[in-house]
Amino acid sequence: MTVLILTSEEDVTADMVVAKLHEAGTPMMRLDPADLPGKAVLSAEYAHGDFDGHLSVNGHVLSMGGLRSVWVRRPGEPAAHAPHPSPWLAAETRQALYGMLHSAATRWMNHPHNAEQARLKPWQLRVAHLSGFAVPPTVFTTAPRLAQQFAEEYRDVVVKSASGPPPGDPGLALPTTLIGPDADFSAVAAGPALLQRYIPKRADIRLTCVGTRLFAARKTAEPGQVDGRYGETGHAWEAVPVPERVGRSVRDYVAFAGLAYAAFDFAEDEEGIWWFLECNQGGQFGFVELETGQPISEAVALWLSQRKADRRVPARHW
Amino acid sequence: MTVLILTSEEDVTADMVVAKLHEAGTPMMRLDPADLPGKAVLSAEYAHGDFDGHLSVNGHVLSMGGLRSVWVRRPGEPAAHAPHPSPWLAAETRQALYGMLHSAATRWMNHPHNAEQARLKPWQLRVAHLSGFAVPPTVFTTAPRLAQQFAEEYRDVVVKSASGPPPGDPGLALPTTLIGPDADFSAVAAGPALLQRYIPKRADIRLTCVGTRLFAARKTAEPGQVDGRYGETGHAWEAVPVPERVGRSVRDYVAFAGLAYAAFDFAEDEEGIWWFLECNQGGQFGFVELETGQPISEAVALWLSQRKADRRVPARHW
Repeated sequence: MTVLILTSEEDVTADMVVAKLHEAGTPMMRLDPADLPGKAVLSAEYAHGDFDGHLSVNGHVLSMGGLRSVWVRRPGEPAAHAPHPSPWLAAETRQALYGMLHSAATRWMNHPHNAEQARLKPWQLRVAHLSGFAVPPTVFTTAPRLAQQFAEEYRDVVVKSASGPPPGDPGLALPTTLIGPDADFSAVAAGPALLQRYIPKRADIRLTCVGTRLFAARKTAEPGQVDGRYGETGHAWEAVPVPERVGRSVRDYVAFAGLAYAAFDFAEDEEGIWWFLECNQGGQFGFVELETGQPISEAVALWLSQRKADRRVPARHW
Repeated sequence: MTVLILTSEEDVTADMVVAKLHEAGTPMMRLDPADLPGKAVLSAEYAHGDFDGHLSVNGHVLSMGGLRSVWVRRPGEPAAHAPHPSPWLAAETRQALYGMLHSAATRWMNHPHNAEQARLKPWQLRVAHLSGFAVPPTVFTTAPRLAQQFAEEYRDVVVKSASGPPPGDPGLALPTTLIGPDADFSAVAAGPALLQRYIPKRADIRLTCVGTRLFAARKTAEPGQVDGRYGETGHAWEAVPVPERVGRSVRDYVAFAGLAYAAFDFAEDEEGIWWFLECNQGGQFGFVELETGQPISEAVALWLSQRKADRRVPARHW
């Protein structure tokens, strides 16, 4: 039974998992959907009330009946490397590849449709509330008056992007920024703003969830530092235990969201409370593993290799 | 409790449902996501462990607590009508709008993530098999040799597109076409082909499923007609009863796929068997209702208006 890794990049995180799969002797195939058709060949047959499919990369053939799991790492756009790429060729190739994979009785880390929902920030906050996390008061709005009211109510608020930094090369840095109620909120009418109560923090927490295994890491923050992603603190990530209550909330969250893998970011305040900031279903873990020594890539490899009760039907995406 | 219709078009199908909602006195809001921000204003607040959101269009305000259902009809791209549209503004606006709607305890026709999966043609065939439909043998492949083998095995086969006709204006017609085993299959290597055993048919069947209500319509085919969407037959759609076995399969299919609405296309062969061709989760029904008089728009309006057991949590997408 083979693990299929969909990725376009030779990133450290994927390489660490590949090494663990090799060590364990688990058969594995790596495919960039951009190489289909071309380097990769696909065939899916639906006949006699049954289904069988094959994927062939560099002469290695993977049968859908032998597919244990799919790791959706950083897949390229289907057919992007074709001699004459087009939106229609991409759509046809996406249909063939993902339609075939979705027809197989396989496990997904993460199922693409659960991943899509899990990317919605406002939905994340709602599910976090329902899972029992401490969540900083937050507003998403296109109404300048409501943005100002929110800033007046909570005084110290941060503004950040919901979808991430604007695309472009070179990329535009868009750190989370502290603002006061006297700011000019008129531009909110031109594009939705995400305002959140500022949590003065003594540390950043990254909690990685792989199946039912949790790995928490902590990095002390500089006093007054707002966005841990920008600027050096001189501190390193250190493994810390997961508070029992947080562990329960994490398990509720991933069960509700249908995620096999998730990376949670928290701000630890002066009283030691972990405030939910976001949950990235595709978050990196290489940097945490390298600094803390936590066996996250091994846990991912193990999850991908595990046999679950055989199912003859495609995975419903939950 | 209000029904929200996301659509960019004044199409006959949407208008028919709007008329039924008006007749029944059901409050309704129509929104094109392209008009946000601008004509529409949005605000979603996550605070005190709770959630509330508002959507305002032309001075009418809809609270998320008062949202009964969302009909995803033909929504425009978020922020497409903004003075300075951009991929990033679209992404931020999509986050705010869909994130807020997904946070609400509402019903969806259809849930966007179920709709996304239901569009995958190969997956449709697999689920149709498992639901007990008769499905013509089909192959999706980028291997010319396998395409040729398939054509030799089944003799009369049709080739069609999996994702629909190529985009463009004017659109390119791409009717389903009959080919023989002596065709040149070499181009299959450049883009996946969908080959299917040809079903000589005496009629086209359109079966519309709204919740648990089924409406079947039949149109006699011209002898030798391959694609019912192109060319006039001189015959009209007529209401026909749903065979019991087909009804069971339809209910299994929509339950598995998590769809509240689906339009099935079948080919009726000389022996009266209905062969599954495809299931379009967003298929039109206006033309069927106008010709057959079947109360489909009323069924849609009723489904959208119905109260289900109150839930305080967002709909999981199944």
